[in-house]
Amino acid sequence: MSDRLDWFLDRSSPEPLHMQLVRFVKSKIEDGEWSVGMRIPSQRDLAANLKVNRSTVVAAIEELTAMGLLEGRAGGGTYVVNTTWSVLAAKPPLNWLHYVEAGNHRPNLKLVQDINEAEFQPGIIRLGTGELSSELLPQRGMQQILSRLSQGPLWLGYEEGRGNARLRQAIAEHMGRAGIHGSASSILIVSGALQALQLIAMGLLERGSTVLIENPSYANSIHVFQAAGMQVSGIPMDDEGLRASLLPHYRQQTAASLLYTIPSFHNPTGTVMTDRRRSELAQICRQERLPIIEDDVYRDLWFDAPPPAPLKARDPEGMVLYVGSFSKTVSPGLRIGWITGPEPVIARLADIKMQTDYGASSLSQMVAEEWLRSGAYEAHLAELRLALRARRDRALQLLEQYCGGIAQWNKPQGGFYIWMKLSGDVPMVRLFELARQEGILLNPGIIYDRHTSQHLRISYAYATAVDLEYGIRTLSGLIRTLLRGPIDES
Amino acid sequence: MSDRLDWFLDRSSPEPLHMQLVRFVKSKIEDGEWSVGMRIPSQRDLAANLKVNRSTVVAAIEELTAMGLLEGRAGGGTYVVNTTWSVLAAKPPLNWLHYVEAGNHRPNLKLVQDINEAEFQPGIIRLGTGELSSELLPQRGMQQILSRLSQGPLWLGYEEGRGNARLRQAIAEHMGRAGIHGSASSILIVSGALQALQLIAMGLLERGSTVLIENPSYANSIHVFQAAGMQVSGIPMDDEGLRASLLPHYRQQTAASLLYTIPSFHNPTGTVMTDRRRSELAQICRQERLPIIEDDVYRDLWFDAPPPAPLKARDPEGMVLYVGSFSKTVSPGLRIGWITGPEPVIARLADIKMQTDYGASSLSQMVAEEWLRSGAYEAHLAELRLALRARRDRALQLLEQYCGGIAQWNKPQGGFYIWMKLSGDVPMVRLFELARQEGILLNPGIIYDRHTSQHLRISYAYATAVDLEYGIRTLSGLIRTLLRGPIDES
Repeated sequence: MSDRLDWFLDRSSPEPLHMQLVRFVKSKIEDGEWSVGMRIPSQRDLAANLKVNRSTVVAAIEELTAMGLLEGRAGGGTYVVNTTWSVLAAKPPLNWLHYVEAGNHRPNLKLVQDINEAEFQPGIIRLGTGELSSELLPQRGMQQILSRLSQGPLWLGYEEGRGNARLRQAIAEHMGRAGIHGSASSILIVSGALQALQLIAMGLLERGSTVLIENPSYANSIHVFQAAGMQVSGIPMDDEGLRASLLPHYRQQTAASLLYTIPSFHNPTGTVMTDRRRSELAQICRQERLPIIEDDVYRDLWFDAPPPAPLKARDPEGMVLYVGSFSKTVSPGLRIGWITGPEPVIARLADIKMQTDYGASSLSQMVAEEWLRSGAYEAHLAELRLALRARRDRALQLLEQYCGGIAQWNKPQGGFYIWMKLSGDVPMVRLFELARQEGILLNPGIIYDRHTSQHLRISYAYATAVDLEYGIRTLSGLIRTLLRGPIDES
Repeated sequence: MSDRLDWFLDRSSPEPLHMQLVRFVKSKIEDGEWSVGMRIPSQRDLAANLKVNRSTVVAAIEELTAMGLLEGRAGGGTYVVNTTWSVLAAKPPLNWLHYVEAGNHRPNLKLVQDINEAEFQPGIIRLGTGELSSELLPQRGMQQILSRLSQGPLWLGYEEGRGNARLRQAIAEHMGRAGIHGSASSILIVSGALQALQLIAMGLLERGSTVLIENPSYANSIHVFQAAGMQVSGIPMDDEGLRASLLPHYRQQTAASLLYTIPSFHNPTGTVMTDRRRSELAQICRQERLPIIEDDVYRDLWFDAPPPAPLKARDPEGMVLYVGSFSKTVSPGLRIGWITGPEPVIARLADIKMQTDYGASSLSQMVAEEWLRSGAYEAHLAELRLALRARRDRALQLLEQYCGGIAQWNKPQGGFYIWMKLSGDVPMVRLFELARQEGILLNPGIIYDRHTSQHLRISYAYATAVDLEYGIRTLSGLIRTLLRGPIDES
């Protein structure tokens, strides 16, 4: 529950260690941090974290149980059952967990929660993370921009609903270079692309409606649509991207109201939708009157040539909501992305954004504008593309070396991801846990496609060269151990 | 719909003006910015904005109507009915407005939307805005902090779910000075206090449950609870704050699951809940097992003495979720606030925050930490309190001078607000509109209490001294004109 036990025993104190532990737990309960109904950390975790004998922990828990504050449960685990006050009262104490369980919003997938948490474990090797390594993030460039901003006037107030007008203008020009025509008034600044989807789910879709997505898709990992009461339905892909010709069939079967697609350097497969497929898709969606969310956050991360023009640039009927972001290129921590679409849609989404968080950080918006305006964005991209391509080459070489015969994979032309298919069925939960014990965090394919137990998303964007090699080598060993059936050891 | 018509006619061109306007509207439709179903700006607005004769606009609209793109409606207004492509097609075009209307999330109150929009009209005098004037915001201090940050290592990646650990530690220490004990692990960083409420509404409350609030309350203006399917029910206030003794009655009547209160410098009345009342309220909520959201964003803005200790400092059973923010003191644009509460609640809310926007801006978080750590926050507050007190004095003097006999008001001891009660019924919508024609933006009391037509929220935090005088003098004149019944002109 806690990020860590922010407390240390005083071994030089005359007070026995177990009584110090009793005091610690009491203070957690008295300060309202550990509430009634909460399961406290296990005896083993407490002993390990505090570097004491298990018997010390047991003595403390017995004492606290005698005081009426804790209680062991038959099914296992020790729970807070009273506050120091309520122990004397007739009425049962407030149990926040009833509130936690009552809330509308569904919790994140357990596996995704585990991954979110594990990502902050010191030293863990993140082999599938959808994020640039800190060495690829432009420290120096950001310092220069902050220094420049510190010398001029700063806007510290709230921004207008759609976001900083100068940033929107800069983004309109940036998108113009990709063939998208539109003015600043049809752009909404959001706190990252995920929030764009959140606002669309809240503002444009009916509960019970269906969103078509690629299968596999990043959309399955976030369940932003599901949490708002929508279904998602996945359409198969091939080497050219989403199989557009299947759309009419899927639409008819599901009465879908929207298509969500990632045409450039698709997450998790790395696929680039071909120019031909994009034209076909655009035409079919026009015929079907099926609006599109085009998630194009990886577009600028091409290695040899830019991907084909966005769907939004082939959109004479205004059916595409285009989503962009700075998170995959400059800094995820900025939390700046954008949506471009018809003005009534943008106005509606801006209103909801104002209602939920009063707009994105104005500081982040000033910084993002400066990146675009100054040309630093393009300069950084030129370097980033080279570095990412070198990382991709290295990852492919390591896969060749260690995973030949036990898996297959694609050769991505940009973005972060390799979609790896194991040559046989592997108990994926077991693989995930074994890898974690070896200090390696995996992104199992099931996060993106709940019917696969054969895939892993590998990212070459995050781990260092050394970690990548150790990670892939170790992974190979674990897979070989777990693979049922004959393995080609050639 | 558009923030402005970002286009100008070329009067030196041989192309007739009305044909230029046709081209402009066609490009808006072709680029998908003006979508089918959207009402275009009125002929009057177009003529005024573009500085052309009404006849030019009429000619253009006739042309576009003949092309099948626009259509006048019987009820008034001209609408986009086709895209340049769909005009030839057999099937009706996509109408985004069906999506806008289908969305789950209710739009903001019309009056609040109007105010949000009017706030960005150049030159408008904002007489009720809940925001510090830019001259009260610490430009110089922020520049120094950015300059300092630009010289050290920057964290550009995603933050952990609860937010930057160093900022949470600094906030824990900051709250400790107000008597709140708790560790960094029971704090969640949010993108402003409004998002705190949004997360609580999504994560802890059942649809159909009731939230008790003060009447009047800021909570009525945001309807974050209502949008998530909850009811709100207002409890009367007196000079000491929320009338705590009425709580058991209201709770029984509504089966309420939570109390939302603003005990310090209440929005909109400016009331400070007394020490005695806070103790009474805390005790009653303990007896009732009724959890509390304590919105304490104005706490640090006291003039002569700090307000009594927070409810959270009287909370041995962990029943209070405490909400703080930097928006009312340092910079609204930072979008940084926090929630403190029991760890299972914080974990739940952190998970939802991760699902909706992956955390607050890391840049904003670094800046906020530096404000607290460096002591710049306290130094700024010392100055800010003096400046705000002088503004309060000036506002009270102006009210005395211009509004004696037509209204009554309180003398706030901190925060931003004066709650002004008119001596008779005034048609408030008319007053709002007349004031707006005079360039003055009002916050009618009905936003905070839908049963009052006699109140206005006046803020001395935003308008300049000159604007404040002009605003209050003009307001006085308008009220006197509108007040029905005898007026004491003494």
